[in-house]
Parts: sequence; structure tokens; C-alpha cells
Amino acid sequence: MARERLARKREENEVEFSRIVAFSDGVFSIAITLLVLGITIDPGIPKDELAQKLWDQHEALLAYAISFAVIARFWLVHHSFFSEVDAFDTRLIALNMLYLGFVVLIPFSSQVLGEYGGQLPSVVVYSANLTAVVLVGQGMAWDARHAGLAKSSAQTERESVVRAAFISGVFLLSIVVALFNASLAPYIWIALFFEGRAHVIERLSRPRSP
Amino acid sequence: MARERLARKREENEVEFSRIVAFSDGVFSIAITLLVLGITIDPGIPKDELAQKLWDQHEALLAYAISFAVIARFWLVHHSFFSEVDAFDTRLIALNMLYLGFVVLIPFSSQVLGEYGGQLPSVVVYSANLTAVVLVGQGMAWDARHAGLAKSSAQTERESVVRAAFISGVFLLSIVVALFNASLAPYIWIALFFEGRAHVIERLSRPRSP
Amino acid sequence: MARERLARKREENEVEFSRIVAFSDGVFSIAITLLVLGITIDPGIPKDELAQKLWDQHEALLAYAISFAVIARFWLVHHSFFSEVDAFDTRLIALNMLYLGFVVLIPFSSQVLGEYGGQLPSVVVYSANLTAVVLVGQGMAWDARHAGLAKSSAQTERESVVRAAFISGVFLLSIVVALFNASLAPYIWIALFFEGRAHVIERLSRPRSP
Amino acid sequence: MARERLARKREENEVEFSRIVAFSDGVFSIAITLLVLGITIDPGIPKDELAQKLWDQHEALLAYAISFAVIARFWLVHHSFFSEVDAFDTRLIALNMLYLGFVVLIPFSSQVLGEYGGQLPSVVVYSANLTAVVLVGQGMAWDARHAGLAKSSAQTERESVVRAAFISGVFLLSIVVALFNASLAPYIWIALFFEGRAHVIERLSRPRSP
Repeated sequence: MARERLARKREENEVEFSRIVAFSDGVFSIAITLLVLGITIDPGIPKDELAQKLWDQHEALLAYAISFAVIARFWLVHHSFFSEVDAFDTRLIALNMLYLGFVVLIPFSSQVLGEYGGQLPSVVVYSANLTAVVLVGQGMAWDARHAGLAKSSAQTERESVVRAAFISGVFLLSIVVALFNASLAPYIWIALFFEGRAHVIERLSRPRSP
Repeated sequence: MARERLARKREENEVEFSRIVAFSDGVFSIAITLLVLGITIDPGIPKDELAQKLWDQHEALLAYAISFAVIARFWLVHHSFFSEVDAFDTRLIALNMLYLGFVVLIPFSSQVLGEYGGQLPSVVVYSANLTAVVLVGQGMAWDARHAGLAKSSAQTERESVVRAAFISGVFLLSIVVALFNASLAPYIWIALFFEGRAHVIERLSRPRSP
Repeated sequence: MARERLARKREENEVEFSRIVAFSDGVFSIAITLLVLGITIDPGIPKDELAQKLWDQHEALLAYAISFAVIARFWLVHHSFFSEVDAFDTRLIALNMLYLGFVVLIPFSSQVLGEYGGQLPSVVVYSANLTAVVLVGQGMAWDARHAGLAKSSAQTERESVVRAAFISGVFLLSIVVALFNASLAPYIWIALFFEGRAHVIERLSRPRSP
Repeated sequence: MARERLARKREENEVEFSRIVAFSDGVFSIAITLLVLGITIDPGIPKDELAQKLWDQHEALLAYAISFAVIARFWLVHHSFFSEVDAFDTRLIALNMLYLGFVVLIPFSSQVLGEYGGQLPSVVVYSANLTAVVLVGQGMAWDARHAGLAKSSAQTERESVVRAAFISGVFLLSIVVALFNASLAPYIWIALFFEGRAHVIERLSRPRSP
């Protein structure tokens, strides 16, 4: 049941709607590109230490790779959610901004992770940031669907809830693991790549039929 | 009464008009994303101090959150103003550039605020920057309406004047408060979130009827 | 007389053409926003020195303002040139890239100017950078017109040559002035704002009629 | 022979398709603009050393120029590849992201090169980065063509394979040269500019006819 909100139809406000989507895309593309600023090399390194110092950046490079994949994945989910939206209101715009606010923080969290990879606080900061993106994103999608702004099927809805729960669960687990051994946490995140395997999610989100 | 200016109709120059809007959107999205550069962590922090050092960034994080919300809000106002514009001339473009010039300064002011939150000079810098955005934005809107470039209703006009006065007033008040206790100033800014409550503004800007 | 080149008509390649224009706009908007990185404040400044240190940034702020105005102006000229282009080829794309390559350098030159405003080398770096933008831009426009890619009137052509000569002249003059007193150079640049006064340029570029 | 994939036609998903292209363009334009951050000047340089310190940036400037040209060239190739694409699927999007992931690293590699130009490790880092872009780009194009997503002619295909082999070869050669004299490596890269000479490539990629 749609709540009482001042929603505007997408087809009648195509210009404004695409400005919102284009703004989000812009923020995504800048955030993903700023990740590179987390990898740096000091000036004035002596000649025989340069190779070593460059090698020392491999943790920063790993954090870059993970974060690039993560932001790219978020962008695709955002992308696919907004292709279902056919009306928007002030609240959707505000939630989208809150969502982007957490996405833009990723370059910072990623830099922390790259610099202090094997330590609990950086795993917590990184996991908290990514979980916030997932939960706000899921909240935005849930809200839009229940306000009748997005035309997702029940199947899509269940899938996206399962996905958000799965991703948050992985990050929560990684924090628990980090309490014992922070260096292992990033390996837990590898599980995220299997989220894409639609089969598992489908099976989990399929309603039990007789 | 429209002044004598070489205005070009929006519908006949849609490509050029959207280039101006897209340029503004680009600047907004970059400025909002650069805010994250105000939150940093030094390399080489000893293991037992990392959590503390990350916690020390909470002021920078707060400045980030405030500035993100503020730029997002400015973007929405800019967005909504330009949806009313149906012709443009050199002066509107120049005023828009001046406006963007102050928007782009926000990441700097925000960094100052995040670093020196509880001190008078940073409250002054931040408030001055944001007031400049509001006043130039209001000036641009006023000018465009009086030159017949924007088709706002008298109601919209009054509302936007009241809003600009309200926002500038809040920042002026926060500077006065900061003279006594700079740490309190950001709490004054919370009032800005109530600006969205259309009811108050409507009531204030409604012409007195018998 | 058009040279032999593989030109593609704009109307038949609208998507590709707008990608080039959008790419240029993107580069302009990022370059103009990166200017803010030239204004910074160190961490850990004692409370009683903060106001002074912020005040010390006024030269950086001035450099920011000049460079913002300059890039905005270049963007408008670029904008207006590309609205005349109705076909493009590899050389136009390459020249446009060379042009953008000098535009992107401006944040660096501007930082040098903001940091070392009153000194000859920074005036030279800044003037050289801006002159390069103007000359490459003029070269690109000249080349496109002579290859029949842009449909400018003879009047527009003369105007743009005069403008390029005027701007380059101002920068050359400012270097000469800086040889004697580098602090005076930026004041010479104020002349640039009068370039907009179409009357002077028109008068200079009008062919002498009997 | 097209593999079994869930491909979506471009004409039926024009909005989503352009979002992917626009996102890529955004990333390209930000990466190319971030190159300027590789050229910096320290604050507090004494008056009589400024010119020298600015001159010391000529290696960084050279690295900037090379990288700007290289990213611009990659953008053009990407541009021209996507103009051939008329359907897309998840794998094309993923490969495009991987491709962009290596493009975004260029500002880092370029900074390393600018700072430590004449040394083996920086030549290796730079060459490895650029070779990765070329190979992933070629892999993406090959994959898309074989899945029937891009409608390239056999001629275009051969040309692009030859081009990728040529570019990778040049970078491999420059690493070999750098083993003996790292300062010479950048001169090997000059060969890349002759890749544009279609004649050579055409001749090499032309099938032998009787």
C-alpha cells in the first residue's frame, strides 16, 4: 500500500530524473577514481630501496582492487535498482544522498585498510562503511518499493533482501574473525564474490512450494 | 519588467543549456566527493594507537557529514531553480560560475572545520563560505527572475527569499555564538535542517490576507 | 579550401560527437574543482595562530579566484567554438586533447602562483601555461575552420584571432613587468576581464570600410 | 559462434547502455585530470631556489605529458570499440570494469615514473600497468566479438590484435632496455606514436592474397 507522498512520475520528469541518476553516476565514478590516491610513493627514496618501497605498496594495491570491485558492484546494483524506479519523491532523493554519502567514504576506509591491513580497527572501519552502504541501499529500495515508486517483482524484492543480509553477514563475520586474527578478515570478504552466483540466492529466496 | 539583455530561449538551445547544467552537476558531484579528502589517516601509526587515531577523526567525519548534507541541499535548490529557467544569457552563466566558485570552496572550509572544529576562525570561514553560496545563489535567482529568464511564481520567489534570509541568519547567529563558545556553533546549524519544513516558510512568506 | 581529411559529419555521428564534448566538459569541471586543493591548512596549528594561518591563505585564495575565472572563461570559449563545429576528424580530436592537456595543468600552475605569488618564476609558469591554452585553442579553431569543420563567419574568425593575440599579449606583458616587480604581474591580468567588452574587439577586428 | 549468454540489445536498453559508456567516460576524464596531482611544489622554498625547484619538475611534466597522451589514446580506442558494440551482457560490463581498474591506476604509475624516471622499478611498474590496460582491453574486445556483441569486421579484428601485440611488445622491449639503462626506456615508448600510422598495421594485418 502506497503511503501519501508527493511522487512525481519518471516519464513526466525525465530531465530531472536523469539529473539525479547522472549525479549519482558522477559521484560513483569520482569515488572509484579517488581510490588511486590511497596508493602513493614518497619522494626522495634512495635508488636501492625503490623496488622494496614499491613492493610495500602491495597491501594498498590489494585494498584498491577490493574497493574498486566493491564500488563497481554497488554501482551495478544502484544502476539496476534505478532502472526499476518509475516515480520519485523528496524522500527517495534524500535516501539516495545518504547512500552516496557512505559510498564517498569508501576511498577513506580503503586507504585505512591499505595502510593498516592486518589490524582490527581498520577491518572494523572498512566493514562498517560497506555494511552501511548495503543497509542504506536496501532501506532505500525497500522504501521506494513500498511507496509504489519502484515496480520490482516480489522475486526481485526477496532476492535483494537476501543479498543485503548475506553481504552484511559476511562483514559482521569478518569483524568477529578480526577479533582473533585481523589478517584473515579480507579472506572472508572473498565470499562476497560468490554472492553473484544467482543460483544460491535464488534457492534461498524461493518461496517454499508444496 | 525585463531589462534589455541578449537572452536565448532554452528550447532553441537545448544542447547548450544542458551543457551548462551538466557542467554545474559535474562540479557539484566532484566537490561533494572531494569532501572525503578532508578525512585522512597518517601512515606509520603504532598498532596500539590506531584505534585512538581513527577515533580522533570523528570531528572530521562530522564536518564531512554536515558538508555533504549542505552541498546535497544546495544541489537540490540549484536543480529546482534551473528547472524553472527557460532562457539564459551571459550574465546568468557568469553568476552561475560565481556561485559554483563558492561551492567548490566548501571542501576547503570543511577541512578547516574538521581540523579546528571548536575554534572561532574555522566557524567564521565555514559560515562565510556557506553564506556566500546562499547569497550568490539567491542573487542569481532574483536576477534571472527579474530579467524574465525564469518563470517562478510570486509564491516561489517569496519562499526563496525567506529561505536565503533564514539560512544566512542561522550562519550569522552561529558566528555570534562562536564569539562566546565556538564549540556550540555547529549545534546552531542543526536549525538548517528545519528549513526544509515547508510549513514554517510558507506561513512566513504567505501574504497577509484580510 | 578544405584539405583532404577524413571528416565525419556531426549530425550522422551525434553520439560520438557528444561523447567528445562531454569528455571535454568532464575534464573542465574536474580541473576547475581541483583548484581548491591549492588552498590547504596544516594540521596541529596552535589556537592563537589559526586566524593568522588562515589569513596567510589569502594569496592562495586569490590564485584560486583568478584561475577559476580563467578556466570558466576558457570553458565558455570552448563551448562556443564547439557549437560551431559541424564535422570532426582525428586531427580535431587530437588538438582538442592537446588543448585539454594544458587546461589540466592549470591547477598546478595555480598552486605555484598561490604559494609563490610575488616571484618571477611562478608568474612565468602561470603565464606560460595560460598562453599555451590560448594559442593551442586558437590553433585548433583556425585549423578546424580552414578544414571546413566549423562554420564560423569571417567576423567570428577575426574576433577570435584578435582575442587570442590580446590574451597572449597581456601574459607576455605581465612576464616583462614581473622581471622588474613580480608582485605587480597579477594586476596586469585584470586587463583580461576587459577582453569580454565586445566593443573594443569588434572595433579592432572590423575591416576598414571606406 | 556465439556462446550462450544473456545479452541485451543496445537499441532496447539505450539508457542503460549509455550509463555504462558515460560511467567509463567519467572515469577516463577523472583519471586523466588526476595526473596533474603528480606534479607538485613544496611550500616554503627560498626565493633563489624556486626556479631550480620548478625546473626539477620537468621529469614529472614529461611523465604527465606521456600519460596524458596514453590515456587519451586509450579513451579513443575504448570509444571506437564501444561504437561497434550493439549488445551487452554481465561479462562485458565486468571486463569493462577490470579495464577501468587498470586505467585508474595510471595516475599512480605516472607519479612513480615522474619521481623516479631513470630507474628500473618505475619503468617496470609503468610498463606493466599500461600493458595490463592493453591486454585487458584486447581481451574484452575479443570476447565481445566472439560472443556476437560487437559487429567488427574481420579487418578491424586483425588490426586490433596487431595493435595490442605491437603496444605490449614496445613495453616489453622497454623493460628489457631498462635492465641495461633505465633512462633510455621512455625513448622506446616514442615508437607508440607510430602505431597510429595505419599503413604499417594494415600491411601487417592484411591477409596474404595470391
